[in-house]
Amino acid sequence: MSLTTDPATQTTQPAPDPDRVASIKEMSRNHVFTSWSAQGGLDQLPLAGGEGAHFWDFEGNRYLDLTSQLVNVNIGYQHPKLVAAIQQAAGELATIAPGFDSQSRADAARMISERAPEGMSKVFFTNSGAEAVENAIRLARLHTGRHKLLAAYRSYHGATHGAISLTGEARRLGSEPSIPGVVHFWGPYLYRSSFHATTEQEESERALEHLRQTVQFEGPDRIAAIILESVVGSNGILVPPPGYLEGVRALCDEHGIMLIADEVMAGFARTGQWFAIQNWDVRPDLITFAKGVNSGYIPLGGVVISDEIAETFTERPYPGGLTYSGHALACASAVASMQIMEDEGILEHVRDLGERVIGPGLQALTEHSVVGDVRGLGMFWALELVSDKETREPLGAAEMAKIGRACKDAGVWPLIMANRIHVVPPCVITEDEAKQAIEVIGNALAGLT
Amino acid sequence: MSLTTDPATQTTQPAPDPDRVASIKEMSRNHVFTSWSAQGGLDQLPLAGGEGAHFWDFEGNRYLDLTSQLVNVNIGYQHPKLVAAIQQAAGELATIAPGFDSQSRADAARMISERAPEGMSKVFFTNSGAEAVENAIRLARLHTGRHKLLAAYRSYHGATHGAISLTGEARRLGSEPSIPGVVHFWGPYLYRSSFHATTEQEESERALEHLRQTVQFEGPDRIAAIILESVVGSNGILVPPPGYLEGVRALCDEHGIMLIADEVMAGFARTGQWFAIQNWDVRPDLITFAKGVNSGYIPLGGVVISDEIAETFTERPYPGGLTYSGHALACASAVASMQIMEDEGILEHVRDLGERVIGPGLQALTEHSVVGDVRGLGMFWALELVSDKETREPLGAAEMAKIGRACKDAGVWPLIMANRIHVVPPCVITEDEAKQAIEVIGNALAGLT
Repeated sequence: MSLTTDPATQTTQPAPDPDRVASIKEMSRNHVFTSWSAQGGLDQLPLAGGEGAHFWDFEGNRYLDLTSQLVNVNIGYQHPKLVAAIQQAAGELATIAPGFDSQSRADAARMISERAPEGMSKVFFTNSGAEAVENAIRLARLHTGRHKLLAAYRSYHGATHGAISLTGEARRLGSEPSIPGVVHFWGPYLYRSSFHATTEQEESERALEHLRQTVQFEGPDRIAAIILESVVGSNGILVPPPGYLEGVRALCDEHGIMLIADEVMAGFARTGQWFAIQNWDVRPDLITFAKGVNSGYIPLGGVVISDEIAETFTERPYPGGLTYSGHALACASAVASMQIMEDEGILEHVRDLGERVIGPGLQALTEHSVVGDVRGLGMFWALELVSDKETREPLGAAEMAKIGRACKDAGVWPLIMANRIHVVPPCVITEDEAKQAIEVIGNALAGLT
Repeated sequence: MSLTTDPATQTTQPAPDPDRVASIKEMSRNHVFTSWSAQGGLDQLPLAGGEGAHFWDFEGNRYLDLTSQLVNVNIGYQHPKLVAAIQQAAGELATIAPGFDSQSRADAARMISERAPEGMSKVFFTNSGAEAVENAIRLARLHTGRHKLLAAYRSYHGATHGAISLTGEARRLGSEPSIPGVVHFWGPYLYRSSFHATTEQEESERALEHLRQTVQFEGPDRIAAIILESVVGSNGILVPPPGYLEGVRALCDEHGIMLIADEVMAGFARTGQWFAIQNWDVRPDLITFAKGVNSGYIPLGGVVISDEIAETFTERPYPGGLTYSGHALACASAVASMQIMEDEGILEHVRDLGERVIGPGLQALTEHSVVGDVRGLGMFWALELVSDKETREPLGAAEMAKIGRACKDAGVWPLIMANRIHVVPPCVITEDEAKQAIEVIGNALAGLT
């Protein structure tokens, strides 16, 4: 057991303990069935602790983290005030069923709705982003009385059967057949435009025209919802071009279609706003969230619901639910997390560092021959790497792995996704740490040649 | 803030505080969207704390709980050792992504697999029972290369789109259309037999014959899995008659069909075993769990996987996952919970009290004219109430509500489901408390006339 340096949280690295590492690895391979993996030959690093933007292992290694685990530790590792709030709430009443009222659930719902766009007063809590999407589907379908759902290619919405059906990439294919009524369309992605566009404005206009035609041919009065990630996450940090989200909103309004903004990854400070869609002047009908709402210290997700949709269920029972909807301890951690983010100015910090340091720093890496595109905002960035800037041929897996190793050797843990480096650190990363990370990535890129 | 009487947990009731009650209720109605409910006119009790088999509110009322919230608080409210373990683990590293190894995840997986039937070495963790069922579906389909799923009427499996499609009751209907490939069959329920049976043996044989015919007509080589609750929970605490589960297992073996035992409600001490199916000599291929694994102090669920199914994914990547699969803090709470249950002999206590006190005590209530059937085992019981023992006409909602009020007035919080009283207290309920509960129910029944 490590020494505690704080009553609430342990921030001292343990002494190297190779036996413990071997034991954890062996037990994990024997008994843990791992997400999204072939189970044979897995070799994963056991984590021991963390603080701020760093985590460490049981062998004396400390890493500056650019992953936020799975883009969820927005508030940083083991924030002492958040840990203390969880310890306090655990001592009160950890779990309260949805059929009883709960102080922390009421507080969390109020605080989330106060931070959401106007006219979205109610929150349905789940344990995860996937469950949030499942309920957004049901809410939109029952509110409209329609069944079709339009979702984008190059999207990820979760892995339960409804959410994975909406997902617009290869991870869906292992779960087919999909739920009935899902149709995929192409979203804006200027660097590899589906519309042969050469400017952001052209991409925006053509993507909207494509969506409008798809809606027309699918039958506007059969479409319950269009779901999209306000900023596309796992599929490449694709920031929508000016006018796009506004155009989707207008199209939805024209046909009574619900707009679902999936902010499981983009919400709660990641883009410098409580909700990423607040970077534009658009109010969706439903917002799904998870991850950043409490940085995943306790599993929690949910849906923010427009007053119009909530009204549908004033008299009519909502036919959905879950045991831990509005879990007392999870909601207490969300309340504390939002308060800390506000007290410490984390949203402002994200906007400032994103604009002043991370954005320009990553843009400067385009001097390297493999950096094809740099895009993002706040603490939500991707470098897209290519073997040839003209053909935009994606950089190969061997080179990507080499970059990953070089970063780790230099004490920086990167998030490698296909031919991209996603730069999604804890939102509390300091200016010096951010500069160090960018330097290490630059050196890794330089080391390719 | 109440005084703490223990460093880990608060067991002192707060002074009555009507203003706080009003404030929680108002905030809840304004901002919380509630599971399975019409949102208008909800009036729910705010909970303040609990200890053992009791919880209390903010108005000085203390209740002996027969609900375990939603049949999850198996270890009782605010068990001081479980609370302390959560507080300790929160101070270490609360969240570790599935791509890193974790001590508590490895420990939890090992301990669960050691308690499961032989040959089920691996555990895939989720946040909830619904997500567990979603992954059991995917595992069974990919392992068999088949797509059809057989599930029972009178079952509840969760509310995500896969799990709700399997659910065999009215709660499914609001989420239709279902996922493709789901077929429902009738299970054993002697009191209202679908097969005109008059003995347990006849019910068992006829239910098996019905299932065999359904399998035959659906095409045995197209069926990936048969899923059933080892003991049916929300739909009436239906204990399978002798021979039924063994017969289902034999039918599955004959056709290469996977047997999924859904133990989200029945697992982890509820029936006096780690897994309810261990009351019979049957090994399923997949077991889904949640609730009792850590009594819901932190959201956690999962699937225990047979070695044969796990082997399918040695080389072939498993196409499913979730951000918090094997969440460090949730797994730490499961480790502590299993240890406490063992140290305190909770499984033995459940078997003893179920057989010696609760079973006989509830059976004696059949002297009341409205008690049509009493069934269950361990701490998992139902009284089915009827207006006429001959016709078995279900007792009306007004009478059921009257019984509920009478119990609450006497300080016992019952679980009323349709025309049934489910008696599913925390598994740590004492003998005296159990006797008190049965007496209060008896008085409520007597008060009907």
